[in-house]
Amino acid sequence: MQYHLNGFEPGDPSVQDPGSRVAPSGSAGPVPDDVDVLIVGCGPAGLVLAAQLSGFPGLRVCIVEQKPGRLLMGQADGVACRSMEMFHAFGFSDQVLREAYWVNETTFWQPDPSRPDAIARSGRVQDVEDGLSEMPHVILSQARVHDFLLDVMRRAATPMEPFYGRRLVSLDVPADVSAPVMVTLEQGEGQRETVRARYVVGCDGARSTVRRSIGRSLQGDSANQLWGVMDVLAVTDFPDFRFKSIIKAPDGGSIVLIPREGGYMVRLYVELGMLAAGERAADRNITVAALIEAAQRVFRPYALDVREVAWWSVYEIGQRVCDRFDDVPDRADHPPRVFIAGDACHTHSPKAGQGMNVSMQDSFNLGWKLAGVLQGRYAPEFLHSYSAERQAIAARLIAFDREWASLLSAAAKGLPGPDGNPVTSADVQRYFVQHGRYTAGTATQYEASLLTLDGPDQVLAQGFQIGTRFHSAPVVRMGDARWMQLGQVAQADGRWRLYAFEDADGTALRGLMAFLADDPSSPLRRFTPADADIDALFDVRAVLQHAGANTALASLPALLYPSKGRLGLRDFEKAFRVAPGHDIFAMRQVDRVRGCVVVVRPDQYVATVLPLDAHARLAEYFERFMLAVG
Amino acid sequence: MQYHLNGFEPGDPSVQDPGSRVAPSGSAGPVPDDVDVLIVGCGPAGLVLAAQLSGFPGLRVCIVEQKPGRLLMGQADGVACRSMEMFHAFGFSDQVLREAYWVNETTFWQPDPSRPDAIARSGRVQDVEDGLSEMPHVILSQARVHDFLLDVMRRAATPMEPFYGRRLVSLDVPADVSAPVMVTLEQGEGQRETVRARYVVGCDGARSTVRRSIGRSLQGDSANQLWGVMDVLAVTDFPDFRFKSIIKAPDGGSIVLIPREGGYMVRLYVELGMLAAGERAADRNITVAALIEAAQRVFRPYALDVREVAWWSVYEIGQRVCDRFDDVPDRADHPPRVFIAGDACHTHSPKAGQGMNVSMQDSFNLGWKLAGVLQGRYAPEFLHSYSAERQAIAARLIAFDREWASLLSAAAKGLPGPDGNPVTSADVQRYFVQHGRYTAGTATQYEASLLTLDGPDQVLAQGFQIGTRFHSAPVVRMGDARWMQLGQVAQADGRWRLYAFEDADGTALRGLMAFLADDPSSPLRRFTPADADIDALFDVRAVLQHAGANTALASLPALLYPSKGRLGLRDFEKAFRVAPGHDIFAMRQVDRVRGCVVVVRPDQYVATVLPLDAHARLAEYFERFMLAVG
Repeated sequence: MQYHLNGFEPGDPSVQDPGSRVAPSGSAGPVPDDVDVLIVGCGPAGLVLAAQLSGFPGLRVCIVEQKPGRLLMGQADGVACRSMEMFHAFGFSDQVLREAYWVNETTFWQPDPSRPDAIARSGRVQDVEDGLSEMPHVILSQARVHDFLLDVMRRAATPMEPFYGRRLVSLDVPADVSAPVMVTLEQGEGQRETVRARYVVGCDGARSTVRRSIGRSLQGDSANQLWGVMDVLAVTDFPDFRFKSIIKAPDGGSIVLIPREGGYMVRLYVELGMLAAGERAADRNITVAALIEAAQRVFRPYALDVREVAWWSVYEIGQRVCDRFDDVPDRADHPPRVFIAGDACHTHSPKAGQGMNVSMQDSFNLGWKLAGVLQGRYAPEFLHSYSAERQAIAARLIAFDREWASLLSAAAKGLPGPDGNPVTSADVQRYFVQHGRYTAGTATQYEASLLTLDGPDQVLAQGFQIGTRFHSAPVVRMGDARWMQLGQVAQADGRWRLYAFEDADGTALRGLMAFLADDPSSPLRRFTPADADIDALFDVRAVLQHAGANTALASLPALLYPSKGRLGLRDFEKAFRVAPGHDIFAMRQVDRVRGCVVVVRPDQYVATVLPLDAHARLAEYFERFMLAVG
Repeated sequence: MQYHLNGFEPGDPSVQDPGSRVAPSGSAGPVPDDVDVLIVGCGPAGLVLAAQLSGFPGLRVCIVEQKPGRLLMGQADGVACRSMEMFHAFGFSDQVLREAYWVNETTFWQPDPSRPDAIARSGRVQDVEDGLSEMPHVILSQARVHDFLLDVMRRAATPMEPFYGRRLVSLDVPADVSAPVMVTLEQGEGQRETVRARYVVGCDGARSTVRRSIGRSLQGDSANQLWGVMDVLAVTDFPDFRFKSIIKAPDGGSIVLIPREGGYMVRLYVELGMLAAGERAADRNITVAALIEAAQRVFRPYALDVREVAWWSVYEIGQRVCDRFDDVPDRADHPPRVFIAGDACHTHSPKAGQGMNVSMQDSFNLGWKLAGVLQGRYAPEFLHSYSAERQAIAARLIAFDREWASLLSAAAKGLPGPDGNPVTSADVQRYFVQHGRYTAGTATQYEASLLTLDGPDQVLAQGFQIGTRFHSAPVVRMGDARWMQLGQVAQADGRWRLYAFEDADGTALRGLMAFLADDPSSPLRRFTPADADIDALFDVRAVLQHAGANTALASLPALLYPSKGRLGLRDFEKAFRVAPGHDIFAMRQVDRVRGCVVVVRPDQYVATVLPLDAHARLAEYFERFMLAVG
């Protein structure tokens, strides 16, 4: 799709009239005074959480935002492969694929050794390694990502609209752990609303009021790196204007160029040096003209003729992180009631394109846990795992960002790297490629915990690393011979997925299915409500090694061809066979003799890998944190 | 996507609340009294035409429908590959791909030779041959196809809503060819509206009033084949319930089983024999119970337990076609003012799944021509080509349908085929495979005409057959290294596309670009309005044989890297290189030495193939029917 040719227009680009591109958003009435979850902030973290929670009937959830209305432009734009996988689970990845810019290659530019004051291309790499994800790395306005999440909320089981124009005034967490959190909001001219909430989630950005209210603070480097960012429509003879480019100029200036959706617009991140202690970006009074001039200096000898600036900003950033992402004091162990997510608990440079992505993964981690506790599936203590898991990820992100930023900075200034030699553009390029999995969001790995059961059986499926996201691969659905991505059966619906890979003769697979369907200790029997479909909590799928086109579903265990719903219809989508030429057993190193079962969390992370016949261990895994029915 | 588990619900399945799934449709006000085009009928033909015309600013178009509101269920469901390609040009193929059932394999069932009264599977074939289209063959409710087309209309440059509840009372075509067609409509209790229309298009179905008004009639077999059709939610032990299946029972009964979107519902077409002369389907008083019983007989020994019938109908069908699709008398040659499209001019059995598809292609053929005439791009005589092109296609469809239906019928009854031997299920299967291109909609080929310039240069690109739709293949877009389908650059925007394939040394390609950009006889210079973008009428694209990752767009002719819009921004999406491992020159047999230019009509059909240096012939081609600017 090509759009923004005659100037940037916010909203849905498939609508021709610019005045009709932005769908209305927001609830007109008062904020409800008693909710299960109050989400503060309508950024990516807040909206992913709201979209996730809106899928559960009966939950009382409310999301408020300080700004008067929906975001229309600017802010983040990078959507990592991992985020696209999550968007698929929410059902809108195809819309993003259609509108977005796809990052196919990244180019590197450095001072031209043969011409002073000029830059020259020093490298070109494929942006995402082959096979890392079935999804590409794309670029799309954060505002459009918001739109899609707002659409999910609108279509959901419990439709939800944000309440805009609400400033958080105070948040009181009573010492009585059974009492609700008391929140006061202010609308417009001092009109106050009070909300009782069982849980509050602060997705209110780097200057989070929720964070301050629970006495937490960002730790780390002070916010002293000055950045300019602008979305521009421009004419240039720079040859890589539609490639992501990392550019280092001879004078030490640098730009990260991100082509934007629509075919014409680009984003330029311009590094503007360091601030003095206590100085803020606003103190510098930097103008858009100065920002353009700084960019033009980096692009030399290429011309940059900016015809329109769609959005720009100057801001300071530091690598900072909170030590905990909830309100539980260090030596206490009562369940958390207040959480923070996204920029509220970690800030970093935009260079690695991680901000929006990591923030969304924060709340995707939290959403199903909160929903499950509110539905009585998990005990409230289960919620400790949010801070434990995501704080470690954020700390790693900060370390990565610091290393990457200092490498870029050293390269620009010709300073020595860890090995004592001057850092070159080739070093930068090598680092970029080495850390591609990290920036794609697929390197996230949760450590062994209540939820992540590491152990000796990883060897049964080395390609499904415990603690990482389930790495999809193609299979053929037996019921209708459709080629598809196995990982794409996952939806953002709070369900667990058990992927069983058939053993050599199928005995152990049948044994597992019989156990799951019939044994009193089976998690399906223990935790699934009696009146619910058999797959309401645990979605069991199997990949058969030896099945062919004529293998009948009726010959499989009933759990792989279950009756569901009020009409007792059969579900034809539980069993898969190997896709010719794309053998998932080989691609993911699944043991062909023993098979295995891969247990996948509702947020698509591999909880554990177990032998097919480890029935007791499978049951025990869920007994650790799930609450039996009735 | 899985849906309809607990019963069929119309509308958008991603909306959880069934009460909110159907978006409002329809204009409340009176029908405008003076329009450029009046479309009668909101079926697939009418809506494709409306969607196409809504894309042109300034056209005054109105669509009316006799029914009181939008279609919610039933009717057609097969979407051929060719229709999917067209849907991509309208921008909603991804939504269809997401919701639809994909027809991957078709199975054949016949009387079991070893068991009387039983059927047995006699074959299984891949439904669409590899490489025939980048799009699959899918199944989706006609009602959802309507929804997507209504969305296109709503988002368009000239937003449009149908006027429902309007019955066509009369249509008067004055002898004065410059006078408007006078149309009288009736709404509700005799409330009449009069519309003056430059053009009227009857998309009002098999009993078309528009057709009758212009004195045309369907010719051919009388409508004496009786069919029953039902969309059901059922439980069965028939093993191919999620495969398209063609089933012949020992007693001569037959079913075409079409799995439907959502994973649970299926459609059954049940052949119910012949009607007597003059008899109508309604005369038989067939009940849904009788229809189910007829289906159950065919499925024996398998059980068919119908739990819910979402929709059903019994109807008679004959293979019939009009001899002309417009109002021009046989010996007259004044331009047409009234057209008919879809079922209004051809009816046939549902067995080949062609109804909706051919109907949509009718009006896709007409839409850009009408828009061009109304915009002054083509003379009104240009409109003769609609009937000429589409009547021939319909006649071929009727012949195909007759042959296919008689083959199926002979197979069911064990009658001899053309070779004197009894027709077997294997014969049916062979015919099905042989005619796969036909049913996929990709075999349509327009004959040599004003528009279709056949000739000796087809040899330059045997894979782009003149008169057939442009057969897409993968390429890499040079501006951003994106892999894509070349054919998917086409949009339903009335523009011509010129795909230039580079010659061995690039001289002829550069010569063509220089001619197109600068020569006074160039169609771009002759026909593009002075104030419009260079690609407003002719979208020139090139595939370069020898370009690599570092080939700069700036080194290409300016037409392949043009300045556009009010800001003079560069368009980076005109030039392509060969995709590694998918050489479009080899795939489409393009002459590597000489290259060629493939001229593609706004409806995606190849108008001609010419040598790159045949500048005069290229110019002459467009001079035959285009009107110069000013």
